[in-house]
Amino acid sequence: MMEITSRANDAVKTAVKLRESAAFRRERGQFLLEGARLCRDAAQSGIAVQTLYCTLTAQEKYAEYLAPLRACAADCVRVSEAVSAALSDTSSPQGIFCLCALPDTNRARWKPGGIYLALNNVQEPDNQGGILRSCEALGGAGVLLGGGCDLYHPKALRAAMGAGFRLPVTVTADLPALLRESDFPTFAAVPDSDARDIRTVDFSGGAVLVMGNEGNGVSPAVLDACTERITVPMAGNAESLNVAAAAAILLWEALR
Amino acid sequence: MMEITSRANDAVKTAVKLRESAAFRRERGQFLLEGARLCRDAAQSGIAVQTLYCTLTAQEKYAEYLAPLRACAADCVRVSEAVSAALSDTSSPQGIFCLCALPDTNRARWKPGGIYLALNNVQEPDNQGGILRSCEALGGAGVLLGGGCDLYHPKALRAAMGAGFRLPVTVTADLPALLRESDFPTFAAVPDSDARDIRTVDFSGGAVLVMGNEGNGVSPAVLDACTERITVPMAGNAESLNVAAAAAILLWEALR
Repeated sequence: MMEITSRANDAVKTAVKLRESAAFRRERGQFLLEGARLCRDAAQSGIAVQTLYCTLTAQEKYAEYLAPLRACAADCVRVSEAVSAALSDTSSPQGIFCLCALPDTNRARWKPGGIYLALNNVQEPDNQGGILRSCEALGGAGVLLGGGCDLYHPKALRAAMGAGFRLPVTVTADLPALLRESDFPTFAAVPDSDARDIRTVDFSGGAVLVMGNEGNGVSPAVLDACTERITVPMAGNAESLNVAAAAAILLWEALR
Repeated sequence: MMEITSRANDAVKTAVKLRESAAFRRERGQFLLEGARLCRDAAQSGIAVQTLYCTLTAQEKYAEYLAPLRACAADCVRVSEAVSAALSDTSSPQGIFCLCALPDTNRARWKPGGIYLALNNVQEPDNQGGILRSCEALGGAGVLLGGGCDLYHPKALRAAMGAGFRLPVTVTADLPALLRESDFPTFAAVPDSDARDIRTVDFSGGAVLVMGNEGNGVSPAVLDACTERITVPMAGNAESLNVAAAAAILLWEALR
């Protein structure tokens, strides 16, 4: 098998840029995924794997993950340890990477009684990924992503543990319009004590839970499109919960 | 005022090492804190601020935060922008740092009906800090920290947003012994579907909620010291919640 040994190789440079730049990912319609488990999960979730890159060491160590991956990947290329280190976002890479096609950005469907999450400019990749992971684990029906959210940042991909491949996700440039056309009540999560206590809300008919930016909360335009402001009542001196913790509690309360 | 302009200055080198090394923090009994808000919160929470370092720019920009800080700090030293960049853990530092004494590590007290969190080798600083933030926001009575947890890592300090200074925290090398001597039921959070559903637990008499390591969960020795294993019931294909999300849901359920 041919092996890429140079970091100056064009395919390597493209892959590194896909890892680093959201704009480049959108331009190319591709993203770079790292790690045996995540790559296998993506392939098994129907993500189109265009090229599988792996080291000789990984080929032996992660054989069980690679078998289903090889069956899906259009192309398999061996890379040296040095190239693996260049492709990786971590300090101890497993040596497995997939160049994938960005999936369809309009996969969420309104289901009766479904609980949906909408992310309005949630900024931190760890938070975005963590929220998707909670949404899947707790049984959310789908995710609506407004501008400023990027699920294909390496950290967001890691934190989501594949939830973004399995959950129905819709990406929109106009979140207020999408919220207005939903048949469900749309609740903006805010850290304000005068907003409605989530324990008094009836979520049984379905709902959209809207989470805002870490620093600035839900934007005025999105707030304006929501049915109501709701809040997790707090004790103590803390001003607010982290957005991923608040999302977990809201999902739990709506789905428990 | 004298200004430190060299990164080779001994005080700067010590501060950088305190930021980087948990072992050095323990050895010196000190930690380095960064940011106007966090430094002020620490001082107002009774943390002993030994030296305040700030840039001329910060002195003007964050005057309202600095006033209470200067009143508490034993010593105030001006630093250049280059030194600020060396001290900082972020890409755009505010230019305010405090060298603080590590607080007493035995502050948690058993209160009737209190809900306590115990961290058993939770590894990621973001998770540790996020869990402390949730604990304070939701009204937890205190935190028990087993080995492997380090609240004074710069990322943990940022994620906790000062909760670690205000919450009663006890650090222990023997978490199983501390759990055994508690008067409360001690619940190990596990991702196993055969563990007890948290919706069926009566938390009203107080409880200790034990969160485990991101990869390996609660250790066998700690599990053995717990009254019962409990779990957040899950849907979908996800194997588990992130530990900070699980802690938020558990705290919420126990305190709602």
